[in-house]
Amino acid sequence: MIAVLKHTATPEQIEALTRWLEHSGLHVRSYTANGTSLIGLIGDTGKVDVELLQSMEIVDTVTRVSEPFKQVNRKFHPEDTIVQVGSTFLGGDHFTMIAGPCSVESESQIIQIAMAVKQAGATILRGGAFKPRTSPYAFQGMGQEGLRLLQLAKEVTGLPICTELTNIQQLPLLEEVDMIQIGARNMQNYELLKEVARCGKPILLKRGLSSTLEELLMSAEYIMSGGNNQIVLCERGIRTFETRTRNTLDLSAVPVLQSLCHLPVIVDPSHGTGHAALVPSMALAATAAGAHGIMVEVHNDPAKALCDGAQALTCDEFSYFAQRIRKVREALL
Amino acid sequence: MIAVLKHTATPEQIEALTRWLEHSGLHVRSYTANGTSLIGLIGDTGKVDVELLQSMEIVDTVTRVSEPFKQVNRKFHPEDTIVQVGSTFLGGDHFTMIAGPCSVESESQIIQIAMAVKQAGATILRGGAFKPRTSPYAFQGMGQEGLRLLQLAKEVTGLPICTELTNIQQLPLLEEVDMIQIGARNMQNYELLKEVARCGKPILLKRGLSSTLEELLMSAEYIMSGGNNQIVLCERGIRTFETRTRNTLDLSAVPVLQSLCHLPVIVDPSHGTGHAALVPSMALAATAAGAHGIMVEVHNDPAKALCDGAQALTCDEFSYFAQRIRKVREALL
Amino acid sequence: MIAVLKHTATPEQIEALTRWLEHSGLHVRSYTANGTSLIGLIGDTGKVDVELLQSMEIVDTVTRVSEPFKQVNRKFHPEDTIVQVGSTFLGGDHFTMIAGPCSVESESQIIQIAMAVKQAGATILRGGAFKPRTSPYAFQGMGQEGLRLLQLAKEVTGLPICTELTNIQQLPLLEEVDMIQIGARNMQNYELLKEVARCGKPILLKRGLSSTLEELLMSAEYIMSGGNNQIVLCERGIRTFETRTRNTLDLSAVPVLQSLCHLPVIVDPSHGTGHAALVPSMALAATAAGAHGIMVEVHNDPAKALCDGAQALTCDEFSYFAQRIRKVREALL
Amino acid sequence: MIAVLKHTATPEQIEALTRWLEHSGLHVRSYTANGTSLIGLIGDTGKVDVELLQSMEIVDTVTRVSEPFKQVNRKFHPEDTIVQVGSTFLGGDHFTMIAGPCSVESESQIIQIAMAVKQAGATILRGGAFKPRTSPYAFQGMGQEGLRLLQLAKEVTGLPICTELTNIQQLPLLEEVDMIQIGARNMQNYELLKEVARCGKPILLKRGLSSTLEELLMSAEYIMSGGNNQIVLCERGIRTFETRTRNTLDLSAVPVLQSLCHLPVIVDPSHGTGHAALVPSMALAATAAGAHGIMVEVHNDPAKALCDGAQALTCDEFSYFAQRIRKVREALL
Repeated sequence: MIAVLKHTATPEQIEALTRWLEHSGLHVRSYTANGTSLIGLIGDTGKVDVELLQSMEIVDTVTRVSEPFKQVNRKFHPEDTIVQVGSTFLGGDHFTMIAGPCSVESESQIIQIAMAVKQAGATILRGGAFKPRTSPYAFQGMGQEGLRLLQLAKEVTGLPICTELTNIQQLPLLEEVDMIQIGARNMQNYELLKEVARCGKPILLKRGLSSTLEELLMSAEYIMSGGNNQIVLCERGIRTFETRTRNTLDLSAVPVLQSLCHLPVIVDPSHGTGHAALVPSMALAATAAGAHGIMVEVHNDPAKALCDGAQALTCDEFSYFAQRIRKVREALL
Repeated sequence: MIAVLKHTATPEQIEALTRWLEHSGLHVRSYTANGTSLIGLIGDTGKVDVELLQSMEIVDTVTRVSEPFKQVNRKFHPEDTIVQVGSTFLGGDHFTMIAGPCSVESESQIIQIAMAVKQAGATILRGGAFKPRTSPYAFQGMGQEGLRLLQLAKEVTGLPICTELTNIQQLPLLEEVDMIQIGARNMQNYELLKEVARCGKPILLKRGLSSTLEELLMSAEYIMSGGNNQIVLCERGIRTFETRTRNTLDLSAVPVLQSLCHLPVIVDPSHGTGHAALVPSMALAATAAGAHGIMVEVHNDPAKALCDGAQALTCDEFSYFAQRIRKVREALL
Repeated sequence: MIAVLKHTATPEQIEALTRWLEHSGLHVRSYTANGTSLIGLIGDTGKVDVELLQSMEIVDTVTRVSEPFKQVNRKFHPEDTIVQVGSTFLGGDHFTMIAGPCSVESESQIIQIAMAVKQAGATILRGGAFKPRTSPYAFQGMGQEGLRLLQLAKEVTGLPICTELTNIQQLPLLEEVDMIQIGARNMQNYELLKEVARCGKPILLKRGLSSTLEELLMSAEYIMSGGNNQIVLCERGIRTFETRTRNTLDLSAVPVLQSLCHLPVIVDPSHGTGHAALVPSMALAATAAGAHGIMVEVHNDPAKALCDGAQALTCDEFSYFAQRIRKVREALL
Repeated sequence: MIAVLKHTATPEQIEALTRWLEHSGLHVRSYTANGTSLIGLIGDTGKVDVELLQSMEIVDTVTRVSEPFKQVNRKFHPEDTIVQVGSTFLGGDHFTMIAGPCSVESESQIIQIAMAVKQAGATILRGGAFKPRTSPYAFQGMGQEGLRLLQLAKEVTGLPICTELTNIQQLPLLEEVDMIQIGARNMQNYELLKEVARCGKPILLKRGLSSTLEELLMSAEYIMSGGNNQIVLCERGIRTFETRTRNTLDLSAVPVLQSLCHLPVIVDPSHGTGHAALVPSMALAATAAGAHGIMVEVHNDPAKALCDGAQALTCDEFSYFAQRIRKVREALL
């Protein structure tokens, strides 16, 4: 770690800073060139509070030389981690489609969608039972009954199931769940991360709405340092000023994360765009960008459902573009 | 709520959408002008899933006519809410200074700072015992021992204390705490919001790093609809592309929130800027913008502390600008 | 256009606003429902100053029902516009690769790269002669001499050439240029847009660093309303808080722009990511997203060039991924 | 400047990079610690293309040790620059109010507003004659006639005038103008910056919508290195995801710019917020933050104007808060 000091820093201040840093067990070397002083820190800088260092009066900028994430770092673990969910694998050369409704709503809904997405090639079923909602007045998910229906769909189709955890106290209820999703709003809920590290199940960790890729990796580091390396990272769009899409899907996250880290990286184009019409092209783009998989909402479009059972058609849409995704995969082998 | 439909929408699709919305208990009126169709929704639109509506194939844009927040809405509650913390009041014509260290580190540290900030005019002591940290390897706070020391400082100075809650399971430990802080990373941890709604204590709710003001109000609505109206909102900077400050302090949040909502609004310039040198000017700016108070970190600067006990000087700095804040307040009476 | 008024608006204020809007030649209808007043504007709302309307004291929100862009709007011009540059076509079913160095640096450099990219399948040569640079001390391009070298490369290879215009006064020098680029920093330089509208040449219009897609379309509208419909839109990354990439490439811009507008849409992954290592995967992703082409910098890597002529290798890299792009194109036919 | 290299960098690559950098006239020193290689650059690094360096395959991060701006840098020019506009001074201990309408619309409008703002304490009159507008169909300003009316207002009131330049070719028309504004959209129109550097008049340089503070300073460096040091910087809000305000006014820009640079820094709360109701509190906040002045639109509110001549009232509003600004100034002396 290198700290560039302000030109107003006095020798006494630099000396004091040096002694403080050495107290933390670091080796400190200082340089002066062209009137600017620099301090180089050597040792386990993972414990250094960069924000504190940066906020100090005499410090201009702080640059990390080594990444703060260790266990998820590809540098120290060059080969890809393969995550197993039921009989499905994520990572390496595998390409995995996770599909299902936003929320579990009824037995017929979840069974119907589960069968359709399985037929189309999805190998993990997703469905929300506990829904984190912006409004306290909005539907918060079916809860335990939703979990029961998901499990039923698993029994019927054999697909492993993935659902979101929003509260540590729900953990005992998720015994039959094959993969636990940590949603974007909980990516920095460190208490939740510590708990799911202990549960041993595969974790799908979604990038926060305004999280940097390094922060996403630090959250994965929480889980991995807690003893669980079965982690799948998921890009799902970040918040920008653009209003034509709900979020801005950051597909460059795929190659960047893959170069920094050994965990599988998938993309959720449904939340990433907020418009069903944009999902196919963004799912194809994610595939071509080298993602290890996609996570797609297969809409149970209520408006259409009422008039012409269009739900099945939406499953058809998924089936159609799943084929196209396979073609892109084959073209890039 | 008004939904503008795409020009490609067929009469059958509009009819189906209308029927689905009516099923939700809303009155629906549709208009067509210059070839564009609109749907107006009348009734309790708070339950309508705007994002779902917006994601529909035939929907172009959705505009809310009435705000989704009800209980925190000034429209329905014109007079200011006054929040009482110990013998201190926040809101209305009160101006409140909350000060203290980022983390509680030792008995002498917290007692010394508590006495100094009290002397300078602060009426609530802040200090972190449970620290949400980006890195699992960073210091996570003193925990229960930190709470004990905070309580000691309260006994010595008589100042009510405010500390951050990061986990529902910590709640029983916070009995002696006078105000519970929900940090930026937990602003949308709805499970935590539901719990603190039940605890009855005053809540300091910080704006999330990339939250809109409407989302902050919806999080306050969670607490208030859960039965607790003792809520103070806190602007603490949002994430932008600017790198010279840690965050971008959004001071226009003060008048905007005050016009939309009846709760007190304070500003945290320490986290908002990330540099001690910027705190005084931003605290003065917040005061002039009409904030109901400020929350400031009184640094226990370790570098200086080692060489010349500069910690006291930092308390002096706080004391100096607290005087200036009072002058600005008086000038604007 | 619909304006939702604040609940504090008096009948007199609404009446005054209505009369003012009617003065502008619009039909105004007002509604009141559940205590909220709305104003609907019918007629040529393209001239209404939305920001002025929005800033008025009694106005809460303003929603456009029809888009402010007319001539570039697919609604009024459903078929794709095909842009011809030399003997190359952009738009419709065509897929076009534009390649070349960031700056023209020497005769051998531009000729060598031009031949290599032509061989690899590029059909337009790019190269900067006038470079807009953040620093006044940085190399500002070779200027006229750079234009001469570009033209030489055109003669040698037969490739049409594309270069950036930064100043109206350069226009006479660009007679032999086949396509004029308006860079991101000049996307809202309306005076420049008006001039290039008159010149009749094909225009490559890059999205501004923090421009919305609607603003990009409004800038295209400037050119098209000035009499020039030979416009190619280019997504090149937007500014966000992420620091691992120079910008965040917004690939959802491709399908969004294609649905709103009839002009060709290409993607520049070089500026969009800022790292050569990310270009291939993002170029493939852009292709799979349905872009009409890509614009790529073929680096004349000076570091490598000095030791092992790696420049040719970079051309090889382009050649290799150009093949992969063709495979993705074929897979999606 | 320090470049941290990727751990995959080979000695040959490092050697090649070193030689290339030395060719540019820099002294290069390389270090290796804990398996990571660093390169330190000494000399005139202002000419180094940081983005090119950063994009190289073997380079991980680049950190500047010294700022890329020289002439505007307070480090080399510690005392405040005072800018004179007519008989008004900006910078140092001066506090200056610039006020006037967004656009000049008629003789009576501009004269009336000019007299009112003078009376209220403004010492520079602003007014747009050439308006950069997002839509080609929107009113683009009165042009030369607007300039004539501004000049008339100057003769009547004695106030120096400030107006926006959008095109180099307008420069000869601005002979009677006392201060030239470069708008946010033209902050990186380097060709325009080079021209106004030569004109010798005071320049009001507005921060771009998504510009970093360093970029703003680099644009000022263009003007100053071109021979004109009469530059006033203006914060006017940046683009974020927040939708309740048109932009997010970044008031921390005031102390940050003042510490980095010796030029006066003013704030435009009108464009920064987009809502008249927010202007007074943000103008007061800017004052308390230590700004050297404010620039305010005195609205010629058409809706009100039609019914009750509310335009004068808006001038009254300005007059009222100008008094409050003076009180805040006095309190902080």
